[in-house]
Amino acid sequence: MRIGICAPSAPFPRELVAPMQAVAAGFPGVELLFHDQCFLSAGHFAGTDEQRLNALLDCANDPGIDAVWFARGGYGSNRIAEAAVTFLSKEADNKVFLGSSDGGYLLGALYKAGIGRPVHAPMPLDIKRERGEEAIARVLGWLTGAPDTLEGNLDGDPAVAFNLTTLAMMAGTRLMPDLRDHVVMVEEVSEYLYAVDRLFFHLVQVLGPMQIAGLRLGRVSDVPENDRPFGTDAIGIAREWCARATIPFLGRADIGHDHANRIVPFGRMRRFENNRKPEDARP
Amino acid sequence: MRIGICAPSAPFPRELVAPMQAVAAGFPGVELLFHDQCFLSAGHFAGTDEQRLNALLDCANDPGIDAVWFARGGYGSNRIAEAAVTFLSKEADNKVFLGSSDGGYLLGALYKAGIGRPVHAPMPLDIKRERGEEAIARVLGWLTGAPDTLEGNLDGDPAVAFNLTTLAMMAGTRLMPDLRDHVVMVEEVSEYLYAVDRLFFHLVQVLGPMQIAGLRLGRVSDVPENDRPFGTDAIGIAREWCARATIPFLGRADIGHDHANRIVPFGRMRRFENNRKPEDARP
Repeated sequence: MRIGICAPSAPFPRELVAPMQAVAAGFPGVELLFHDQCFLSAGHFAGTDEQRLNALLDCANDPGIDAVWFARGGYGSNRIAEAAVTFLSKEADNKVFLGSSDGGYLLGALYKAGIGRPVHAPMPLDIKRERGEEAIARVLGWLTGAPDTLEGNLDGDPAVAFNLTTLAMMAGTRLMPDLRDHVVMVEEVSEYLYAVDRLFFHLVQVLGPMQIAGLRLGRVSDVPENDRPFGTDAIGIAREWCARATIPFLGRADIGHDHANRIVPFGRMRRFENNRKPEDARP
Repeated sequence: MRIGICAPSAPFPRELVAPMQAVAAGFPGVELLFHDQCFLSAGHFAGTDEQRLNALLDCANDPGIDAVWFARGGYGSNRIAEAAVTFLSKEADNKVFLGSSDGGYLLGALYKAGIGRPVHAPMPLDIKRERGEEAIARVLGWLTGAPDTLEGNLDGDPAVAFNLTTLAMMAGTRLMPDLRDHVVMVEEVSEYLYAVDRLFFHLVQVLGPMQIAGLRLGRVSDVPENDRPFGTDAIGIAREWCARATIPFLGRADIGHDHANRIVPFGRMRRFENNRKPEDARP
């Protein structure tokens, strides 16, 4: 199991490579390959758009790699998502793409294009969190067949999971996948409740006509204190906008910007099956 | 000239009524009528959705009122915009609707519905700013025929002006007007540059296919400092996303969250003409 790690958004701190490798050492046969681009810096981003795109293509088009893992969020993957789906080769189809937060633009664009298997999952930068090793181990566990790594509410319906801002900003663009019949899970961090309300206002206008199976709300954490209380909480907000758009509100989801963030493979997939044949793949 | 003031978003501080009336006293024949709803409070908002909607309808449907002025932004007018265009009567058609920032949802929805004459303008809460009286006097001046109140780049093309977040969140919803052939002006306040970049990413996907005449960037002020510099400024961001979407970038606009914010009547209108006949209107 060879996992290629690139950074489509912001740079990854080099000092976190060793702690990552320490967790991976507990998973025999798992190899983490950090692309050098992870450590580049160009203003806000982990290198220029071109550098970030090329690193993603390097990982995704490499027949010797099984999984592509986005090192972290932090903004920027939207800027290369259209180009990525244009230039990804057939090799990408056999891979899983793992990420969350800002990485959702790529997951969504890949899902729309039918390329590979996008998976909402913790990311390498999560190792910085308290109990962050658990988040990392959850991803490596899912990739190697461990049970109890999935979000607990997954049922027969196809599912997706996104950061709320990411999904709202994607909704209405060419990147947005058709989510008909899907359970849509969203989570948020560090946004005022009025901003959460505003994001739902926008999002349900797009999700409503798609006739999704329903919406689940993950954790909405680190809400800044405003000069006055909003008047309801995040569940109240989600419930109200779902009602306005006649979207079934299905309750909570076990995802969020925290170490407990669980895995949501997009679509109907639940377990990772490795299709790569090592003897073919390494000529 | 009777100006009805209501608060479709957040509440207006009662202590600012007197300073407003003091400015209006310099405009003979101008009467400011603050609706009681301006001072209501329900969580974040100036009363419930129903109370805010009813006050807007009170002002807009009153044949004795010439202009409806939104007291302030602060989030919330999007929650009542669809209901407003549904319930506004024919009386609203002869009125101007003045506002900006969060009030843009209503201006946009009215413009789409062809109801009244929406105008991007300073709002009563602006009187709190240093030199805020100038902003208020600019609005009363425009309503009473004073020159030099308009945004300086208005030419033969129809125009609109919006807060960037407001327009981006409206883009892709049923409220969004068709802006074909329009000069679109946007301004922003208190957003990180990465968030400005993200908003443009979303917005140009909607504006591009509309074939607008071009985009002008107003002031992007009070940008919070991030943990690392973004790498370009707001003009660079606007220019790049316009280029990506083949939208002509036309330069700066003289609008913003400040006392100098100038007036942009939506469409081709430049001067306010009062169509109300006082003898008919007050039976």
